[in-house]
Amino acid sequence: MVGFELKQKDSGSSARLGVLKTAHGQVQTPVFMPVGTAGAVKGITPEQLRQAGAEIILGNTYHLMLRPGVETVEKIGGLHKLMAWDGPILTDSGGYQVFSLNSLTKLSDDGVEFASHVDGRKFYLTPESATQIQMRLGADIIMCLDECTPFPCEPDKLHKAVDRTLSWARRCKNAHNKKDQMLFGIVQGGIDLELRSRCAAELKKIDFDGYAIGGLSVGEGHENMLRTVEHTALLLPEDKPRYLMGVGTPADIIAAVRAGVDMFDCVMPTRHGRNAYAFTEDGPLRMRNNVHINDSSPIETDCDCYCCRTYTRAAVRHYFNVNEMLGPILVSIHNIRFYQKLMTGIREHIKKGDFAGWAREKLEKYAVFLSV
Amino acid sequence: MVGFELKQKDSGSSARLGVLKTAHGQVQTPVFMPVGTAGAVKGITPEQLRQAGAEIILGNTYHLMLRPGVETVEKIGGLHKLMAWDGPILTDSGGYQVFSLNSLTKLSDDGVEFASHVDGRKFYLTPESATQIQMRLGADIIMCLDECTPFPCEPDKLHKAVDRTLSWARRCKNAHNKKDQMLFGIVQGGIDLELRSRCAAELKKIDFDGYAIGGLSVGEGHENMLRTVEHTALLLPEDKPRYLMGVGTPADIIAAVRAGVDMFDCVMPTRHGRNAYAFTEDGPLRMRNNVHINDSSPIETDCDCYCCRTYTRAAVRHYFNVNEMLGPILVSIHNIRFYQKLMTGIREHIKKGDFAGWAREKLEKYAVFLSV
Repeated sequence: MVGFELKQKDSGSSARLGVLKTAHGQVQTPVFMPVGTAGAVKGITPEQLRQAGAEIILGNTYHLMLRPGVETVEKIGGLHKLMAWDGPILTDSGGYQVFSLNSLTKLSDDGVEFASHVDGRKFYLTPESATQIQMRLGADIIMCLDECTPFPCEPDKLHKAVDRTLSWARRCKNAHNKKDQMLFGIVQGGIDLELRSRCAAELKKIDFDGYAIGGLSVGEGHENMLRTVEHTALLLPEDKPRYLMGVGTPADIIAAVRAGVDMFDCVMPTRHGRNAYAFTEDGPLRMRNNVHINDSSPIETDCDCYCCRTYTRAAVRHYFNVNEMLGPILVSIHNIRFYQKLMTGIREHIKKGDFAGWAREKLEKYAVFLSV
Repeated sequence: MVGFELKQKDSGSSARLGVLKTAHGQVQTPVFMPVGTAGAVKGITPEQLRQAGAEIILGNTYHLMLRPGVETVEKIGGLHKLMAWDGPILTDSGGYQVFSLNSLTKLSDDGVEFASHVDGRKFYLTPESATQIQMRLGADIIMCLDECTPFPCEPDKLHKAVDRTLSWARRCKNAHNKKDQMLFGIVQGGIDLELRSRCAAELKKIDFDGYAIGGLSVGEGHENMLRTVEHTALLLPEDKPRYLMGVGTPADIIAAVRAGVDMFDCVMPTRHGRNAYAFTEDGPLRMRNNVHINDSSPIETDCDCYCCRTYTRAAVRHYFNVNEMLGPILVSIHNIRFYQKLMTGIREHIKKGDFAGWAREKLEKYAVFLSV
């Protein structure tokens, strides 16, 4: 049976331990999902992903519906086959990219028309078609189509977006009929806590397999984000997984876990990795920097990732300097491992019952990391 | 002890089986060496290289002396450490790149001045310094500095280049004093067989650990190349390894093995791989082609490489189509495996004693492959 099991609640915070049960295996929560936008975590093979500790990954419906297209994914046997990943996969609905990558979007209560950012081809997405497409892609967890608002956003527009998101959520739920695939609703409402409350309450009535907090990490800043997450997470059903979309830095994640969130995805470890920015316990390292030129130590001495077990800082710096693909690949691998170790640490300390203190310490330490 | 052991001679051709013994392990010959120009086989980790069957790899002294520079390589513990490769490595002398990448080369009997193709910085390479640099890089096999002539080349210039190559070979031999590192001489002479004979005879007198045939695959065409290799290989000492530099297509390699060559290197599997050109037993596949769009079979059904065990043709095509790094990486891995399986086949059939017939069949079949 697919679903979620709450295993333990932290006494010193709202953090929780759980198990996400999917058709492609179980995952311990809190969990971080590396992003495989167009059907691949950039430059990283599934073998390397597994080695780095990833257990569930994300695909972007918007990118996949444009290329290679849902027909192709279906014909070759689904998204797991395309990505060569036999573990759980989550797809978003495409809504976020439609609103953020397109200036030609035409929005109505029925759905949203947009032009492909690749070739201008027109597409029309409705709650029904977004659900259909995700059922055909075949991820283990799929998301409702929602209206994503920018930050800042006028109150009137924000209210209308929440209404539309709720109406679309009902239609997604009606369109969904794949038993072994979970459907998550998405709470919108910007940083308006009252609006978030209303949206959460209405979504709960529809009854989803899980609930996401969307529309954050779009420029509102860490404080606003955190206040909204702390408010919203606790409104959501305790026995369902809670997913904070597109977040974030290590500190964002720790703070959100403390607020009761179970699932995360973010391009940060891989995008930063491609830009030679390595996460370490002692803060970020810029791997293009000349300071590494003759350094025979690994990026992080105690790290068990393939990059640190294998390569010197000097080699990684050299690869970036001469535009060798291995530079971006190796730092991406290291950063994914860093994030996975972060989640392991979070789960261990919730289990041990000393999460709150550990989190305070780490939050201070990890404040140095830049967001994307 | 480093060196070469001739194990078996083919009765139906000049092909041979041998063992190359280096300070970083033994390799069965005939052997193919993937090229790690700037300290990395592009996009491929040592783990993936091993998995694809590579046992010895090549680094380019020209690229390495410019970036990261010999001081850096030495400071971090040598080329094996930089490349994170604990098997044998061969470095070329830099001569080929100096003559092919530079228009500002100033050549004298003493040495050659050239400007870096990266930033125009001036460098001066002599037989002594080329040997010194390679000793400091620390490869298991290093090459004499030679004068590489273009094709076609006027007879006078060709003769002078051979004289200089011989004089430089003597100076390289004198400069070399690293016992566990083999030094190979290089036979030059274009497609002039008499000149090749003279060059080979003189090099033999100097007594090297191995002998390379250089200056081919520079536009002379398969027939000229083959004629020169067939002539030259048999002039070389039977108890020393013979290395055909920068060659070539699968057919080139089979023909050269038949002529008595033991070692090969070429960028073809990786460069073709980055260009979506996959080697298969049934001929090349262009992986960008729309014909693969819904194809759920692997690049090659019986192939045991990571790409074929893991990914569909549809996925590989898609990755090239959307510029995902995995496209070039996966086809490079497949092509390296193809070359390694080719060498395994060659060795097996020499051992079984049916190499000549097998080679004839394969030469016909593999005529379809393009050179770089």
